[in-house]
Amino acid sequence: MRNRGRPTKHRAAARTPAVDIGALTCLIGYMLRRAQIAVFQDAFRAFAEVGVRPAQFSVLTVIARNPGRTQSQVAAALGIKRTNFVALIDSLERRGLAERRPAPRDRRSHALHLTDAGKAALRRLNRMVDKLEAGMIRRIGRDRRVVLLELLHRLADNEGSRHAPRKWGIQ
Amino acid sequence: MRNRGRPTKHRAAARTPAVDIGALTCLIGYMLRRAQIAVFQDAFRAFAEVGVRPAQFSVLTVIARNPGRTQSQVAAALGIKRTNFVALIDSLERRGLAERRPAPRDRRSHALHLTDAGKAALRRLNRMVDKLEAGMIRRIGRDRRVVLLELLHRLADNEGSRHAPRKWGIQ
Repeated sequence: MRNRGRPTKHRAAARTPAVDIGALTCLIGYMLRRAQIAVFQDAFRAFAEVGVRPAQFSVLTVIARNPGRTQSQVAAALGIKRTNFVALIDSLERRGLAERRPAPRDRRSHALHLTDAGKAALRRLNRMVDKLEAGMIRRIGRDRRVVLLELLHRLADNEGSRHAPRKWGIQ
Repeated sequence: MRNRGRPTKHRAAARTPAVDIGALTCLIGYMLRRAQIAVFQDAFRAFAEVGVRPAQFSVLTVIARNPGRTQSQVAAALGIKRTNFVALIDSLERRGLAERRPAPRDRRSHALHLTDAGKAALRRLNRMVDKLEAGMIRRIGRDRRVVLLELLHRLADNEGSRHAPRKWGIQ
């Protein structure tokens, strides 16, 4: 129950004990989701200034690092479904941040590149990400960052082990 | 890039180095999302047998532990938006797993209860969750479970600190 200062709500909260979500707080699966939602709320809020969502940030990052790759290559590396990915690139292209060019080796597919505006947006986003990550590191404790990343990579690898080459590795 | 045994794809993979997702693998925010997606893929697959999604499992759990609470109380405890929550309860009610009854103290709101079928479904789901969690614990190492939960609670609390009473606590 949320109390935002309205007196009637305060009285109701005093009468009724808080709802207990019980064993959910002990489930890795559930807590992963709660942590991810909390962290992404901050990212959505910060990125709104550039008009970009977290998934679009990850796509801009991968295109910047691998210019000229095809849609299906980038989508697979990020584990994004083909249809969702096409819509995502459409949106980046409409906004002038990324562009599709004919792929030199395969005329049926499109090679992805960032525009200058896309590169500038990514520089701004990276500064925001640095701040967001610093905030998380403060919350978990500086010496726990690598531990957490290692554990998350092991859980994420569940997917990797079935579908894609192992590509995680903490740098 | 996915290689599923088609020779042309194998040749393409040999020619082209893997797409490098770069610094994303070092971001807590990004790796939280990848881990959460991987873990939820397994949960979706398991829960499909009962026809329930992970969010519905969490709602059934909280109603079972707090019978008679109102929709807004349960929604707030789980951090689910009101409109999404109403649709979620509609679906559980249609399928005979949960029901709304008039709330004794407030006739405008509905008290949530599980049906016998809902209680039986939850027992099956809990057995599946035990197996899923055991699989995660095997991947991260048995002695790392509490460390991981503690770190996830700290990240999830970011949300809690602004909006809701602190309710995490590893049992």
